[in-house]
Amino acid sequence: MAEIAVLGYGTVGSGVVEALWANQYNIDRKASQPIRVKYVFDVREFGAPIDKLLTHNIDDIIYDNDVRVVVEAMGGVEPAYAYVKEMLSRGKSVCTSNKELVAKHGAELLTLARDMNINFLFEASVGGGIPIIRPLNSSLAADEITEISGILNGTTNYILTKMTKENGDFNECLQAARQMGYAERDPSADIEGFDSCRKLAILVSLAIGKQVDFENIGTEGISRLTQRDVAYANELGGTLKLLATAKIDGPGVYARVSPVILRGGHPLAFVNDVYNAIYIKGKIIGEVMFYGRGAGKFPTASAVIADVVDAVKNLNRNIMHFWSTEKHEILPYGALKTDRLVRIGTNDAGKICQTLNTVDNVTFIKLFGDEIAAVIPDAANDAYERIVHSLAATGGDGRVISRTAIEGE
Amino acid sequence: MAEIAVLGYGTVGSGVVEALWANQYNIDRKASQPIRVKYVFDVREFGAPIDKLLTHNIDDIIYDNDVRVVVEAMGGVEPAYAYVKEMLSRGKSVCTSNKELVAKHGAELLTLARDMNINFLFEASVGGGIPIIRPLNSSLAADEITEISGILNGTTNYILTKMTKENGDFNECLQAARQMGYAERDPSADIEGFDSCRKLAILVSLAIGKQVDFENIGTEGISRLTQRDVAYANELGGTLKLLATAKIDGPGVYARVSPVILRGGHPLAFVNDVYNAIYIKGKIIGEVMFYGRGAGKFPTASAVIADVVDAVKNLNRNIMHFWSTEKHEILPYGALKTDRLVRIGTNDAGKICQTLNTVDNVTFIKLFGDEIAAVIPDAANDAYERIVHSLAATGGDGRVISRTAIEGE
Repeated sequence: MAEIAVLGYGTVGSGVVEALWANQYNIDRKASQPIRVKYVFDVREFGAPIDKLLTHNIDDIIYDNDVRVVVEAMGGVEPAYAYVKEMLSRGKSVCTSNKELVAKHGAELLTLARDMNINFLFEASVGGGIPIIRPLNSSLAADEITEISGILNGTTNYILTKMTKENGDFNECLQAARQMGYAERDPSADIEGFDSCRKLAILVSLAIGKQVDFENIGTEGISRLTQRDVAYANELGGTLKLLATAKIDGPGVYARVSPVILRGGHPLAFVNDVYNAIYIKGKIIGEVMFYGRGAGKFPTASAVIADVVDAVKNLNRNIMHFWSTEKHEILPYGALKTDRLVRIGTNDAGKICQTLNTVDNVTFIKLFGDEIAAVIPDAANDAYERIVHSLAATGGDGRVISRTAIEGE
Repeated sequence: MAEIAVLGYGTVGSGVVEALWANQYNIDRKASQPIRVKYVFDVREFGAPIDKLLTHNIDDIIYDNDVRVVVEAMGGVEPAYAYVKEMLSRGKSVCTSNKELVAKHGAELLTLARDMNINFLFEASVGGGIPIIRPLNSSLAADEITEISGILNGTTNYILTKMTKENGDFNECLQAARQMGYAERDPSADIEGFDSCRKLAILVSLAIGKQVDFENIGTEGISRLTQRDVAYANELGGTLKLLATAKIDGPGVYARVSPVILRGGHPLAFVNDVYNAIYIKGKIIGEVMFYGRGAGKFPTASAVIADVVDAVKNLNRNIMHFWSTEKHEILPYGALKTDRLVRIGTNDAGKICQTLNTVDNVTFIKLFGDEIAAVIPDAANDAYERIVHSLAATGGDGRVISRTAIEGE
């Protein structure tokens, strides 16, 4: 029998306990032995039947040598980091859903687990229930991955889908996301792209085998998007998505999180509502995509439980692909060529057109009276700089409202 | 060092050898040891550099105790089955891309591998490069799977996409698939649905842990579809797809392969061209989908190589989820309720409408002069029988041309 402990009895922690109980037969059969929850650690109080398992003292778990696998579902960096480090250094494998922890300290905790010949597993930290860490660790591990792009945040995808399909404005749609329970009271980690950024850092670190600091990934959220951006996306035959993307070209790793107009048949363009998807290109495998619920109590619990089963089956055997603490620099995504839509506020669109015609192959879209948009094909940053420069030369009428990458055909 | 043998030097076999050579560094690092091809077995002759590895005598491999992992890429049941059985019984793990072999003898070969404490792996047998066997074996193994639906054949999906987007007729589009190298000279295994059927049998066997005979899965291909079927799909806001579906309700397993009109936001509706995807519903995980190239030299090789790496890392450790030789009966899918489109050839549509109005909630679509179509909501087989009965009562004018399931909202 394997006795486990669950740290944190919030949405994920309670989902893990409930799903373990409800699916005991299947899970035990898969693990080839019974898996039982011995402790739930939380500072709060809970009624039956959790009260019998509940402890407020982390030492109960740390010093119980029968507990060889611990689920960390507390969220946040501290005290989760201190607890996880302590557990690992005492030979207990840890399965976590905590993206902040993995993005910040993944390399160190993976190293510690490897040195202890146990496991630090984090399938649930990216994409909720979607199996993505495991494929990166097995099916795709021998490949050379050249791109990882994902819709990694369900809240923002829900808001953008609603803005697109129902013409709501950003605040209305955020409010709807709150009502559905998809957005937290302080939604900034989601809507400003920080959540997607941490998840992207985890995926890229795993793919290249080196630590990528999420602070170095250029990140722009969706809070400034309006119905006008939706209108431009429609006009271009595309869909507005918050995309987390990394392109890997040998040692050159380019990454960013930003709103993107996805055109044509790109499979990520069809990922709607709260669904997430991760699209990967590899030199051998070509293109693959993994799609599913990126959050939610039971989808996330399912990923944690898959990790628990693996941890129980590999008590003295390190199975995770390793990424080193060596830091890998992220290059600015702007250096890569891509089509861009630049919105320019002006009362004299004609003059702006005349000025920007000096920039190569620009086409114009005129949808609104007080602005004009320019589509700049394959624009690297320098082309954009030239636009800003040209605009200054117009003598003041004309300012960049926003620029959005356009991807797909 | 791990020395391996490759049986069959066709598309997949040569892809495996070439990809192993081209990505040696990554693959060796992942396997924690060098993996080298010692033998290629084929009845044909090949020039350098394969000639040095080539043998026409299978005994060279059978009796070489240094070869612990064998790739089977010959295709077809015999002699692949005899060779694989021999290899496994001599303690050599086998990695295969051969869906006929796995669908027919999977249970027996898995049992043999388990008894020998080695591995019989077949990631490449379904979905080409798409990781699907491995997630079913790990991430999803503790869940209770209630549905597996897939677009499992690239050739037919290419043809249907072309019929839909370019209004070609079936034979033109099949010809185009041939020209692209997507269809074989005898395309019947693809277009009649047999290939999809075998793959579905493998997925369901793995999901329920018991042998499902593909011969018992009702299978209908796409060769009778015309532009009229495409027109009805458009009219219903859907897309025509060859869908392989199983619904699992405790011991009741319903399965079929048939053309389906996929409506609304179903993620499989967006899978176009030669791409494949497998959509899975589980009680804990909810919905997930795996998308990618379902065939092709290197995508398939990538799946085989992932298996080879796993086999090398687990030389004396059985890692596959097991399915027993106990056979599980497949129930006819027709017993499940689903909307259906029934096309009826007639010169007197009015009379047919009048007659069929006795069947509950039928709506009619009139697109062509010599036929009328009836949409029967939630039709179980009995409703269909009543239609046939009603038609007979019209006195002969009115015959069923086809019936197609409608899925999605």
